[in-house]
Amino acid sequence: MEPGFGEPIDIFFGLRYDKKRLYMKLSEDRKVESKEISQAVISRLPRYFRYLGELKDEGIERVSSQELSDIMKVTASQIRQDFNNFGGFGQQGYGYKVEYLYEEIGKILGLDKEHRLIIIGAGNLGQALANYMNFERRGFIFRGIFDNNPSLYGKRIRDMAVRPMEELADFVKENNIDIAVLTIPKNSAVAVAEQLVRDGIKGIWNFAHVDLNVPESIQVENVHLSDSLMKLTYNIISYEQDGRKL
Amino acid sequence: MEPGFGEPIDIFFGLRYDKKRLYMKLSEDRKVESKEISQAVISRLPRYFRYLGELKDEGIERVSSQELSDIMKVTASQIRQDFNNFGGFGQQGYGYKVEYLYEEIGKILGLDKEHRLIIIGAGNLGQALANYMNFERRGFIFRGIFDNNPSLYGKRIRDMAVRPMEELADFVKENNIDIAVLTIPKNSAVAVAEQLVRDGIKGIWNFAHVDLNVPESIQVENVHLSDSLMKLTYNIISYEQDGRKL
Repeated sequence: MEPGFGEPIDIFFGLRYDKKRLYMKLSEDRKVESKEISQAVISRLPRYFRYLGELKDEGIERVSSQELSDIMKVTASQIRQDFNNFGGFGQQGYGYKVEYLYEEIGKILGLDKEHRLIIIGAGNLGQALANYMNFERRGFIFRGIFDNNPSLYGKRIRDMAVRPMEELADFVKENNIDIAVLTIPKNSAVAVAEQLVRDGIKGIWNFAHVDLNVPESIQVENVHLSDSLMKLTYNIISYEQDGRKL
Repeated sequence: MEPGFGEPIDIFFGLRYDKKRLYMKLSEDRKVESKEISQAVISRLPRYFRYLGELKDEGIERVSSQELSDIMKVTASQIRQDFNNFGGFGQQGYGYKVEYLYEEIGKILGLDKEHRLIIIGAGNLGQALANYMNFERRGFIFRGIFDNNPSLYGKRIRDMAVRPMEELADFVKENNIDIAVLTIPKNSAVAVAEQLVRDGIKGIWNFAHVDLNVPESIQVENVHLSDSLMKLTYNIISYEQDGRKL
């Protein structure tokens, strides 16, 4: 493949996680209970992970909360507060050890564990996600892709034949699937999510344009693309009207 | 095309906005200044818009903040507070008029205006976005798609030939492009964003895995897919460890 914009999957997704190194430290050494940690803090963790990965790639060994603050445009106090939720990650006076911090946050994010994943919906977006992610290298094991459109059955997407929805229940159980990626219309998404819950899925990465009602035991992360685009148009309009950023 | 998961674009994206009806009310009747409105409120607007669209489709004419609260799982007080940012949208004692509220929120989101849009990066995700969105019907006018990979030049995506990046600057100016969708690797994204700023773009919908530093006058909305996936794995791991949802 030529070096076009479409190809460099890893760079695009940025899940540059070195699992070999991680396995040397088992995640049991995470001492802090996570129960009081807000979703706001959790939302910031992947961003810390991303910036620390970049510092690591640049060969930087230590970073202070002030330096992190400068590059990430959040306050140093916010960074320290966030890290304190997980025990603080070492003495701030000396700065944080970049690689250690990167690995610890990776473990907190569950990236040292394997997650078996299927995609439901073999349309453009499902195919794009299947092709973008270098799942296997990141702990995300791509195990299958499903659709309800017979004309897609057997079509190969990243060396996986598209399977009919009728096979979903058995497949999820037999392959111990953790995560389902929903790239289907909202009308189908609710019923499919209910089935996935019955079949024992742990998490749903939901691209369908609907909020799913699932039991507390099932984790859902929504990517509502049109919501994001509307927020952009709102900010464009507002800037034009007010002449400044909100 | 068969009625598979991949096809029903509009349902998937949910941008079901009836522009004809909107044009009857010009957006100049929005009386409230938006300068004090937080991004948290703005983030909730598309979700209100989505639920109101569903109520409208079901033929429901009025809805109280309590009823909205029940279906949206946010407090009625939150809803009233959010709406008060924009003047309140009518007397809450009688409930809100669904269609009026839907249209007003649509206008606030800028959906009554045309937005000329290009996609930069004709890889899987760029193609998926080009194909998913029924741009023209929603006020988003898809004007072109660009890449730096010569083997893609001229390839037709939704009846648009992929253009080389060398044509970008002139194209943005000549076609008065408002929004650029960045579906390129992070290494290219920073330079491309800088060029887009020089060329006069108003907003960037950024799928590249990097935070862009642009002037205040340029609006950026990020879709960091891997951040979202990591948040999901965090919540799965945490639930397994703590036995409950955070």
